[in-house]
Amino acid sequence: MSGSTFGKCFSATTWGESHGPAIGVVVDGCPAGISLCTDDIQVDLERRKPGQSPFATPRKESDTVEILSGVFNGMTTGTPISLLIPSANMRPKDYSAISQYYRPGHADYTYDQKYGFRDYRGGGRSSGRETAGRVAAGAVARKLLSEFGIEIYAYTSRIGPIVSDPKHFERAEIHRNFLAMPDSHAAKTAAEYLTRQKESEDSTGGQIECIAKNVPPGLGEPVFDKLDATLAQALMSIGAVKAVEIGSGVGAAQMSGSEHNDNLEYCDGRLQKTTNHAGGSVGGISDGSPIRLRVTIKPTPSIHKSQQTVTRAGENKTIAVEGRHDPIIVPRAVIVVEAMVALTLADLLLQRAASRIDWLKRGLGYV
Amino acid sequence: MSGSTFGKCFSATTWGESHGPAIGVVVDGCPAGISLCTDDIQVDLERRKPGQSPFATPRKESDTVEILSGVFNGMTTGTPISLLIPSANMRPKDYSAISQYYRPGHADYTYDQKYGFRDYRGGGRSSGRETAGRVAAGAVARKLLSEFGIEIYAYTSRIGPIVSDPKHFERAEIHRNFLAMPDSHAAKTAAEYLTRQKESEDSTGGQIECIAKNVPPGLGEPVFDKLDATLAQALMSIGAVKAVEIGSGVGAAQMSGSEHNDNLEYCDGRLQKTTNHAGGSVGGISDGSPIRLRVTIKPTPSIHKSQQTVTRAGENKTIAVEGRHDPIIVPRAVIVVEAMVALTLADLLLQRAASRIDWLKRGLGYV
Amino acid sequence: MSGSTFGKCFSATTWGESHGPAIGVVVDGCPAGISLCTDDIQVDLERRKPGQSPFATPRKESDTVEILSGVFNGMTTGTPISLLIPSANMRPKDYSAISQYYRPGHADYTYDQKYGFRDYRGGGRSSGRETAGRVAAGAVARKLLSEFGIEIYAYTSRIGPIVSDPKHFERAEIHRNFLAMPDSHAAKTAAEYLTRQKESEDSTGGQIECIAKNVPPGLGEPVFDKLDATLAQALMSIGAVKAVEIGSGVGAAQMSGSEHNDNLEYCDGRLQKTTNHAGGSVGGISDGSPIRLRVTIKPTPSIHKSQQTVTRAGENKTIAVEGRHDPIIVPRAVIVVEAMVALTLADLLLQRAASRIDWLKRGLGYV
Amino acid sequence: MSGSTFGKCFSATTWGESHGPAIGVVVDGCPAGISLCTDDIQVDLERRKPGQSPFATPRKESDTVEILSGVFNGMTTGTPISLLIPSANMRPKDYSAISQYYRPGHADYTYDQKYGFRDYRGGGRSSGRETAGRVAAGAVARKLLSEFGIEIYAYTSRIGPIVSDPKHFERAEIHRNFLAMPDSHAAKTAAEYLTRQKESEDSTGGQIECIAKNVPPGLGEPVFDKLDATLAQALMSIGAVKAVEIGSGVGAAQMSGSEHNDNLEYCDGRLQKTTNHAGGSVGGISDGSPIRLRVTIKPTPSIHKSQQTVTRAGENKTIAVEGRHDPIIVPRAVIVVEAMVALTLADLLLQRAASRIDWLKRGLGYV
Repeated sequence: MSGSTFGKCFSATTWGESHGPAIGVVVDGCPAGISLCTDDIQVDLERRKPGQSPFATPRKESDTVEILSGVFNGMTTGTPISLLIPSANMRPKDYSAISQYYRPGHADYTYDQKYGFRDYRGGGRSSGRETAGRVAAGAVARKLLSEFGIEIYAYTSRIGPIVSDPKHFERAEIHRNFLAMPDSHAAKTAAEYLTRQKESEDSTGGQIECIAKNVPPGLGEPVFDKLDATLAQALMSIGAVKAVEIGSGVGAAQMSGSEHNDNLEYCDGRLQKTTNHAGGSVGGISDGSPIRLRVTIKPTPSIHKSQQTVTRAGENKTIAVEGRHDPIIVPRAVIVVEAMVALTLADLLLQRAASRIDWLKRGLGYV
Repeated sequence: MSGSTFGKCFSATTWGESHGPAIGVVVDGCPAGISLCTDDIQVDLERRKPGQSPFATPRKESDTVEILSGVFNGMTTGTPISLLIPSANMRPKDYSAISQYYRPGHADYTYDQKYGFRDYRGGGRSSGRETAGRVAAGAVARKLLSEFGIEIYAYTSRIGPIVSDPKHFERAEIHRNFLAMPDSHAAKTAAEYLTRQKESEDSTGGQIECIAKNVPPGLGEPVFDKLDATLAQALMSIGAVKAVEIGSGVGAAQMSGSEHNDNLEYCDGRLQKTTNHAGGSVGGISDGSPIRLRVTIKPTPSIHKSQQTVTRAGENKTIAVEGRHDPIIVPRAVIVVEAMVALTLADLLLQRAASRIDWLKRGLGYV
Repeated sequence: MSGSTFGKCFSATTWGESHGPAIGVVVDGCPAGISLCTDDIQVDLERRKPGQSPFATPRKESDTVEILSGVFNGMTTGTPISLLIPSANMRPKDYSAISQYYRPGHADYTYDQKYGFRDYRGGGRSSGRETAGRVAAGAVARKLLSEFGIEIYAYTSRIGPIVSDPKHFERAEIHRNFLAMPDSHAAKTAAEYLTRQKESEDSTGGQIECIAKNVPPGLGEPVFDKLDATLAQALMSIGAVKAVEIGSGVGAAQMSGSEHNDNLEYCDGRLQKTTNHAGGSVGGISDGSPIRLRVTIKPTPSIHKSQQTVTRAGENKTIAVEGRHDPIIVPRAVIVVEAMVALTLADLLLQRAASRIDWLKRGLGYV
Repeated sequence: MSGSTFGKCFSATTWGESHGPAIGVVVDGCPAGISLCTDDIQVDLERRKPGQSPFATPRKESDTVEILSGVFNGMTTGTPISLLIPSANMRPKDYSAISQYYRPGHADYTYDQKYGFRDYRGGGRSSGRETAGRVAAGAVARKLLSEFGIEIYAYTSRIGPIVSDPKHFERAEIHRNFLAMPDSHAAKTAAEYLTRQKESEDSTGGQIECIAKNVPPGLGEPVFDKLDATLAQALMSIGAVKAVEIGSGVGAAQMSGSEHNDNLEYCDGRLQKTTNHAGGSVGGISDGSPIRLRVTIKPTPSIHKSQQTVTRAGENKTIAVEGRHDPIIVPRAVIVVEAMVALTLADLLLQRAASRIDWLKRGLGYV
C-alpha cells in the first residue's frame, strides 16, 4: 500500500526518489484563508539543505520549492497544495557496483526483498532526500499552527557522547552553530569529536529534543490516535530514528509514582503543573503545557570504513561506501523533526474542532 | 474523531469504558478460513486479568469473551469479528469526590478539557480496562500470524532500578513469576523492591521488551507506515508508555556507524546479520531477522501517598487516591504489548500481499 | 479488507450476521455533549422491524437496542458508542439444502467465490438484517443533525408500475400506510398490485425518494468525497439498490442546459433558486437548498416461483425459495435510506468545521 | 478535509486547478514490477483532451504527462508514482466580471460558501480540467488490470433524446465518431441535434455506459465498500454526473423478481447466467460476469443563452456565459468514466488478495 500519506484531516502525501527529476508533496485538508507563499516554505527547506556545514555532505542541492496548486492571491483555497522541488546537481554516476550488493545499515536489502528489485540510485525512495517533501509540508502546517500561536522548535541535544547541558541552554545559539546545539560549549566539543570521527572514516549518532509551545489542551484522539502515539509514528517514520520518548521517556522506568506524577496547582489564578514529566500529554491528550519529546538517531550508515556484506548473487564481499555523505545526520534532521511535529499537531488540531457539540456549533456559526 | 480504530487492512475498533456494562472490539479484515474459538482469545485475556498477583489490583474481573460475529463452524468468515467482554464485579461506588478534582498523572483534566465533562467512573475510556479489547483483537491477529509461523513474546526487562540480566534469560521463567521477568533472580529482587514501594504507598515504573520471530522480510510500507513507525504508534498508544525503542534504541546515540551497522554474511548458504542493532527493521521494512523493541512504562499514577492537585471549581487540594490499584502496571502490560505488536504485524502482512505484481498474481491464482 | 466502516470523522462500523447471537454497530467520532438514550434509537429500529405489515416477512424480531458505551448521564462522551441488538426468534432450522446451491439474485455464489465458503444461515452477512446496525447508527447521526435543525425524511415513490403522484404528496400519509407512500391513493393501488404479485409467488421492485432539509451550504469535500459522491456510496451500499439519482437524476440526460440550470435570485432579501434540478448539491457541495435524491430497489430475490440455478457440486437444479420473505423490500428500506443519508451528512458536517481558518478559530475559541 | 484521495490500497490523490501552472496526481500503492511509460498514460489523456471535435471546446491543451517518480528502468517500483501535466495555452484573461457573480449550474456559489472565497479563474478546482489527473491515474490502474486480462470500455449511449441502439452496437465505431457512440446512425442524428442546440446557444445532457470484462469473481468488500457502492462513489464524483445505475438500474423498479433474478446454469461445464440484470455485482461482490453500469451527465452549465443569477454583493443580474465551452460534456467524459472504473477495480483487486487465508499464504509464498 506504500503508506506515503500522513494525517487524516490535514494530510501530506510525499513522493519522489533521491535521483528522480523532482521530489514533492501534496498537502490536502489545509483550511482556506491562510496566507502562504514560497518564502514561507523555502525558509524551512534552507535549514534541511545539504552543503552548508563541514559536518554535512558537500552535495549542493538548490531545493527551490514551487507551489503548483491550492493557493490563490496569496491565500490557501482549501484545495490540495502541491509542492514541487526540482532536482539539481545530479552528477551522472555509475551505480552498477552498488546495484549488486547491499550496504550495511541501508535499506538496500529490504527494498530488494519487498519489491523484487530497487531503484539503487542514491537510495531511491529510502534516501534522506525524501524528507524534503516532509519539510515543505511541515512549513504549511506551521503556518496553520501560527494562527493559533503554536510554536515548535527542536535542537540537537546529544552528539555521540557529548550532551547539551540544559543549564547552558540558549535558544538563539541553535541557529549559530553548525550542529544546531543550544549550548555553545557542547557544540564546540561535539565539533571536535566529529572531526575525529570523520578522520577515522566513521559516523556518529545523536539525539534531538523538540518543544511545542502554546498547544491548547484537548489535542489527541483516544485511544489509538493519541497525541503521543501519533507523534511516535510521525517521528519513528523519519529514516534513522531508533527511539521516541515523550516527557520523562526512558527515565520513567526508574521513577516512582510520587516523583513522576505532575502535581497541579492554581497559581495567580492560572492552572500550573509543578513539573512536566508527562511532556504535555496525559491520556494521549494535550494538557496545555509544552509538548516535550526526544528522538534518537542512529549514526549515518554510509561510512568509508570497510565493512562486510553480501552481493545479490549470494557472495560475501568487503566494501567501503564511496561518495559524499553526512558524517552525522542529526543536525540536518532537526528541521525534519519540527516538520513531523507540526504535521501531527495540525492534523490533531483540525480533528479537535469536532470533539464537542458546543464548539462544533460555534465553529459552524450556529450559536 | 476519537481514533478508536487501528490498522488499515486488518483493523481493530475498540469500545467501552471502565465501568460500562461491557467492553469490546470489532476486528475487521481478518481473512476467511482461519480456525478461531473463544479459547484462542481467552488464553490471552487471562494473562491481562487483574487479581492474580500480589502486585496487581485485587479487583476481580472474569473477563470472559464472547464471539458475536464473523466465525462460522469454527472458522473466520472474512466478515467483522465482534468480541464482547461483559463487565462483572462492579461494586456500586460513590464517585462524587473524584468527579470534582483531577488526579495527578491521570487523564481527568485532559478529558474534561477535551470534551467539557467526563465519565469519571474508574477512569472511563482512559482506564487500563480498555486494553482488554486490544488483547482480544491481538489474539485474533496472533492466530493469523501463526499461520505464517510468526511468534511474538514479551517480558518485563526492568522494574524500577532492577534489570533482568540478558545472561540469565530463560524464556519459560516469564510465565513462572508474578512479574513476567525472564530472570528468576531479578524477579525475586524486584518483588522485594515492589513490596517496599507498596509499603511506602508509592508505585513503580519499568520496561518491557518484545521479540517477534519468523517475520518474513518485506513487512512495512514506505514512508509513513514503516514497520517501526507503525509499531511506535501501536505501542505509544498504550496508556502509560513514555518511550518506544527499536533495536539499539536510545543506545544508538552513542554508537559510531561502524559499530551500529549490522554486517551481512552468507553462512551455510543462509544470509545472516552479525548483529541486530536494527531490531529487524531497516528502512522501515522487516529484514527477516527478529523484531526487537522496548517500551518504557511510567509508574502507576494512582498512589495512596498524598499529592497536590486542583478541583474543577478552581481550588487547590491535597488528595490521596483511594481504592484498589496496581502498584506496578508493567507485568500486566506485557500481554498488551504483545497484542499491539501482533495487530501491527497482521496489518502489514496483509498489505504486503499486494506489493509485487508477481506475488499478487500468484495470490489471486493467475500464475 | 471487509469494509465495514463508513465515514471518516463520524464513522459507523457494523458487524453481525443474520443468524448470529446479536448484531451491532460502533459509532466513533460523535461529538461529546449530545443527549442520547435508547429511545432515540429504538424509534428508528421500530420502523425497520419486520412483521408489521402484510407486505413484509411475518418474522418477528424484537430488535431492542442496548447502549454499551459512549454515553454517560444521558450525554454522549465523545468516545465510541457501541450499540447492540440481541437476536431473537431464531427458529432452529435445517439449512443443509440451501448450503448446497446458489439462490438466484442472492449473494450465495459471490460469497462462496470470495471467501471459499459462507455462512449460509439466512444470508449471513449479506442479509438485510445487517441494516439494523445502520439504522441504529443513523439514529445517532440524526440526533447530531437535529442540533443543527437538519431534518431527513424518505418515502416510497414507486412500487412496480405504481407511482406516487407529487401532486397528492402528503407527508403525514407516509406513516399512515404499510407502504410508506405519501400519496394515499397510490398506496391503495400499490397494495392491490402487491397482493396480486404475492399470489403469483413473485416479488416487486420500487423507488424511494429522500429529502434533507435545512442542510447548510458548504457540506461535501472536493473532489472524491463530494456530497453527492458520498451519498452515492452510502446508498448503493444498501443491499438491493441498483441506482442512485441526485436531483434531476436520469432525467438530466434529456434536458438542455437552459432548462437544467437552476437560476438564482434574491427574493425578499434571501437567495433562492427558481428550481432545484441540482438536488441541493453543486460541484459536490451543498448549496443550502434541500438535498433531493432517489434510489431504485430491485425486487426481492427470494421468490416461491421456481427458478433455475446450480449447486456447489456443479449440477443444474430447479428450486423454489422457501420460508418467510418480504414480497417487497422497499417500504422497510425507507428508514435505511434515511439512516445512510444521516450518516453521510453527519460525517460531512464534522469535516466542514475545518474547511475555513476563520471558522476553525471560532470553533476552537481563538476569536 | 478536501477529499482528494480515492482508493484505500491503490490510491490516487489529485491536485490542481483549471488555471494553475500544472495539474497532477500521485498514485500510491501500485505494485512493483509493472511496465509503465508515458505513452501508456498519454494515450488516455489524448482521448480526454479538448479541441478535437466540433462539439468540444476549441481550447487547445497539449496535456503532455511527465512521470516524476515511482518508475525505474521502465518498471513501477512500488513507491508513489507522481504524474504531472503542465498547463499550456493559458490566455491572459480578465476574470473580474465572473468573480463577482455566480454562474447558474456551476460551483461558484458553493465554493464561495464553503471557503469564504474562490479561485474563480476557469472554475478553479471544480473545473473539468481536474479530470486530467484522474485519467492519468486511471491509465496506471488499467496497466495493472491488464495483467489480469481485465478490459474496460465505455461509450456514449444517449445524447439528449437520441439513444444508441444496442442492436446497432459496433465497438470499433466508438472511436470513429466525435461523439464516442457505438451506433453510427445514432451518432449522425446526435451530431445534427447538437448542431441545432449550439445554434440556439444551449447545451445538452446524455448518458455513458461502461463495461468491464474478465473481472474475476470476489471483488468488492462487504458492506460499505461493495463493488457497486465504490463504483457509485467513483462515478458520482465526476463533476456533472447526476445518476449512477448498475445493471438493470432504474429499470429494476418496474421488474418482478422472476424477471430480475439472473438464473444460473452450467453450460459446457462453465457457470453462466442467463441474464445480467445484476450488472456483474451481487451482494456487492463481482460474480465473474461483465460489470455493466450507466451514468447520466447533466447538460454543460456554461451556455451563451441569457440566465438569471445573483452577484456576490446581493443583486439580481442577467448574464450570458462567454468563452470557449463544450456544448456537450458527454463524449469527453467517456474516458473519465473508464478511468474511475479502472481505479475502483484496481483498488478492490488489491484488497481481494487478502480475503482468504489460503490465497494470502499462496501469494506470500507460504504454500
